[in-house]
Amino acid sequence: MKPFSYYNPVRVLFGDKQKYIANILKADRHSEILLVYGKNSIKKSGLYDEICKILKDADIKFIEHGGVSSNPTLSHTREGVQKAKNVTAILAIGGGSVIDESKAIAAAAASECDVWEFYDGKKPTDALDLYVILTISATGSEMNSGTVLTNEETKEKLSFNSALVYPKVSIINPAITLTLPKEYLVYSAVDIITHVLEVYFTAEDHPKIQNRFCENIVKSVIQTTNKLLKNPNNINARGEFALCATWALNSLTSLGVGEYSFPNHMIEHSLSALYNVPHGAGLAVVLPAWLKYSYVNNKNSQFDRFAKKIFSKNSAKGGIYAFKKWLQKIGAPITLKELGIANEDIEKIAKNIDSVSHRWGLKQKYPYESIKEILKLAK
Amino acid sequence: MKPFSYYNPVRVLFGDKQKYIANILKADRHSEILLVYGKNSIKKSGLYDEICKILKDADIKFIEHGGVSSNPTLSHTREGVQKAKNVTAILAIGGGSVIDESKAIAAAAASECDVWEFYDGKKPTDALDLYVILTISATGSEMNSGTVLTNEETKEKLSFNSALVYPKVSIINPAITLTLPKEYLVYSAVDIITHVLEVYFTAEDHPKIQNRFCENIVKSVIQTTNKLLKNPNNINARGEFALCATWALNSLTSLGVGEYSFPNHMIEHSLSALYNVPHGAGLAVVLPAWLKYSYVNNKNSQFDRFAKKIFSKNSAKGGIYAFKKWLQKIGAPITLKELGIANEDIEKIAKNIDSVSHRWGLKQKYPYESIKEILKLAK
Repeated sequence: MKPFSYYNPVRVLFGDKQKYIANILKADRHSEILLVYGKNSIKKSGLYDEICKILKDADIKFIEHGGVSSNPTLSHTREGVQKAKNVTAILAIGGGSVIDESKAIAAAAASECDVWEFYDGKKPTDALDLYVILTISATGSEMNSGTVLTNEETKEKLSFNSALVYPKVSIINPAITLTLPKEYLVYSAVDIITHVLEVYFTAEDHPKIQNRFCENIVKSVIQTTNKLLKNPNNINARGEFALCATWALNSLTSLGVGEYSFPNHMIEHSLSALYNVPHGAGLAVVLPAWLKYSYVNNKNSQFDRFAKKIFSKNSAKGGIYAFKKWLQKIGAPITLKELGIANEDIEKIAKNIDSVSHRWGLKQKYPYESIKEILKLAK
Repeated sequence: MKPFSYYNPVRVLFGDKQKYIANILKADRHSEILLVYGKNSIKKSGLYDEICKILKDADIKFIEHGGVSSNPTLSHTREGVQKAKNVTAILAIGGGSVIDESKAIAAAAASECDVWEFYDGKKPTDALDLYVILTISATGSEMNSGTVLTNEETKEKLSFNSALVYPKVSIINPAITLTLPKEYLVYSAVDIITHVLEVYFTAEDHPKIQNRFCENIVKSVIQTTNKLLKNPNNINARGEFALCATWALNSLTSLGVGEYSFPNHMIEHSLSALYNVPHGAGLAVVLPAWLKYSYVNNKNSQFDRFAKKIFSKNSAKGGIYAFKKWLQKIGAPITLKELGIANEDIEKIAKNIDSVSHRWGLKQKYPYESIKEILKLAK
């Protein structure tokens, strides 16, 4: 067990709780807010109308900032910051992209600097209060202090963490996710599993309680994804899936494990920045390749354990193969080709990754040649 | 999955962090505090001297309130409230008893009413800031908002919960627990396991992710207790044991399980109130009896699952028996007799429980005759 600090003040309201959003905002004395959302899904589902009515009935004024894209962009975020200068809070209705852009706006609207400076290392000193109504369980952003943004000009996809951007309240209503298209369920499953496995495989120490905690989440994601692909209306499975997403990246998996890093996310962020592929789709391609590369290069017992505990296989290789097969079965892409990325682009991608890799604070270094090797395994 | 609300703002500093206590207090602008602790153990271990020096070096004034007993009492708490009238914060150095009494003082010192009124149903409206240096991992009080107190006059042992009494910071240094006497390790193990099993067996719903989460903690407690009885200096086992204690009662085990209740604690609190037995010792006697009674009266699949997952047994009865055997093996008492309580007292105990049972909000009712039946199983 390694030392750790843990602090997570997010209030999670799980279930049919979005009707309370006006009361929550009023209790915190907010009467003018920025409403941040994505493209059309919340308008189609009726959630947009529901929330607008609740806010209007409660005399809470709101400025709209819709159109957040699935890899949120710097230019769109900057527009949001301008709109947020006279509000006291932000209500994000969406998944990880909407929440991440909202966190960036929350920090930048309370400061004088440009929002990208935070992704470039500057520490926020204040932030607007942030409230979340979650529509896709995947990134865990609803209960953490991280945010990821893409700078379209420089093709950089970077992140920052600050306790100031923890949501004050996150409403997680699994019923809202019932209308989610199948491919997003699959991408979300891969994202959640990757969050857990990055820590599971790269950590310095592996206390048994944490190994089992991680395996529990991975098993639950696999089981609930299988159930939901058969019956998308299984509300219990939606609920359990949602809890997995939140637990996978709210710091619980990493308590006491020491240093760890996110190499798969580093590699995938370049795929998203260069080709705008969905984050979970990119991860489905990167993760099996990274597992193979890592097992060959530093055989540690975690790979055998993973194989045994998750897929009842007696060898690390068997486990990785079973995982890849499962990804295929649920309809996830597992090659660059399936993402529409040509093998000839591998050098270009590796260069992009190499240019930002120093910002990821990775314990194990990934030189250009290693990155190329991993990408080749994803051909 | 049932709806839930979760909010836990405690900052946990895990590891050798007590040296930062003055900085932490100063950052929150506290210059005069109440120092609450138990009997002699922190003086013997040197922790008392260490913390006093740190506080003095930082010019933080402190009033001392030592002598908290292992079942903290109302009269001693009232003395603490008087001492706390001119301080802005409380530093609790101890285990659950010291923290619980400190929570009570924190709430009462910031109000005009008598402290027992909170245990009688009144809601606190304010509280002093509370900081914790944990010396025994058992009750989970370091990361929850509950407190239990014994009224020696009325022989009532009652509790209250308030978000106002969450510790602001809890320092958990497993190295501090290395000097803990063997019997306290055993009592702590039983307390932690009981916290988990109360939820595991009494909850309305049993999402698989929560079943596995609970089983993970129970397994870890059993494994680390076995290790520590062989080698008390196993610092990794101490660390994992400490994380178990904190996770067992910081609300994580109950997310999404719906209503649940604490019948074993209800029964044990009367044993402690009447005979001043250590809480964990009382639980070791009550829990196997309650398990047997409950399995016979409402055979649900959780009992079979428990037997299989924790003790690799194929029947609920086999599981309960194996658990009882394990309790014996680690040296826990498993009969009232071993606690020095005569069988003739069963009626008196049952009456005491019956008189407070309405305050426990139990989903399943425990009439006087049922309580007697459970106690008879503990003969």
